[in-house]
Amino acid sequence: MRYHKIPDETVRRLPLYLRVLLFLLEQDQQNISSRDMADFLGVNPWQIRKDFSYFGEFGTPGVGYKIEKLAKEIKKILKLCIVQKAALVGVGNLGSAFLAYPGVKIYGFDIAAAFDVNPKKIGKKIGNVVIEDVSKLRTLKKRKINLAIISVPRNAAQQTANALVKAGVKGILNFSPCYITVPKKVKVITIDIAMDLARLPYYIPVS
Amino acid sequence: MRYHKIPDETVRRLPLYLRVLLFLLEQDQQNISSRDMADFLGVNPWQIRKDFSYFGEFGTPGVGYKIEKLAKEIKKILKLCIVQKAALVGVGNLGSAFLAYPGVKIYGFDIAAAFDVNPKKIGKKIGNVVIEDVSKLRTLKKRKINLAIISVPRNAAQQTANALVKAGVKGILNFSPCYITVPKKVKVITIDIAMDLARLPYYIPVS
Repeated sequence: MRYHKIPDETVRRLPLYLRVLLFLLEQDQQNISSRDMADFLGVNPWQIRKDFSYFGEFGTPGVGYKIEKLAKEIKKILKLCIVQKAALVGVGNLGSAFLAYPGVKIYGFDIAAAFDVNPKKIGKKIGNVVIEDVSKLRTLKKRKINLAIISVPRNAAQQTANALVKAGVKGILNFSPCYITVPKKVKVITIDIAMDLARLPYYIPVS
Repeated sequence: MRYHKIPDETVRRLPLYLRVLLFLLEQDQQNISSRDMADFLGVNPWQIRKDFSYFGEFGTPGVGYKIEKLAKEIKKILKLCIVQKAALVGVGNLGSAFLAYPGVKIYGFDIAAAFDVNPKKIGKKIGNVVIEDVSKLRTLKKRKINLAIISVPRNAAQQTANALVKAGVKGILNFSPCYITVPKKVKVITIDIAMDLARLPYYIPVS
């Protein structure tokens, strides 16, 4: 693999950079300096230059980085240059929000399946996706879907993860506020939508 | 200020550590090594030791870190040792999910107000919060709420931010998939719930 030396912390920031670049492309901007990019994101310019240098991108002095080329390169590293199919399990408020979230498409994902346990929801269509019964999770392998999003209540998270692993899923984005255990070969990213709120007071002067 | 030298990247990870520590406290665990903590989070042990050293926490060899003391210290740094009141604007799917999200309370937040433009929603109660008309945003200063969460559609995000700034809000967590502009004195953290999905394929071997 070409890019195996990129540190995890840099990989974590690549989607952040990519989102800005795609936004600027939409505005027909062609170049950006690390300083402008830093201002945009509220990070240090040296951090950006260091992160980009890991995959051999060096801006031209006085011109900056070529936005289109850089976006292409980041997409390639993140394996987002092909449409990635994903399944969503748990069509509650958070799941529904995720299905409708513009960002998902911007990054090139196709949420190709959605599952729930609630008979009232099964068969309903959200966007282009018809909600299926969770018992159909086992069809994921055949449908070549190897990424999944878990947005079920906390007490159903582990059994959902087990079913997904059994169905051949290789990567899980877990929104349930708990830690799940999976075999080493499966990558789990657990996210907590409250975590970014938790660092907000740090920046507020005490009045 | 005592902790002004903590790098932003460390601050970003503190809520992650705090969440694990609070979870372990619930299980009556008293100590944890940086290695176990690292395994839990999928990060490097040296990263954890380095992050903690910024605020003078050094584990005891063979014993590790004292969980309760460390949790207290992190809460102090993040200003989470007092209940932080916040207002939520936009009670759609994402906003409703946020209101019900257990993590918000775990970190010690009190979502003390919620606002929407939809007359059908105004007056309804979610949890302990009665949804108010957005025109009532101006009451936030009097109610001593200086943090806010924006979960409105993209095209309403900037005007919501303007109204919040006018109402004296000092920190904004923005879930709308767009960049908003505010005066320098206001801290904005824009998050994208799809961003973590975007780095998942990176970790999946191509089959």
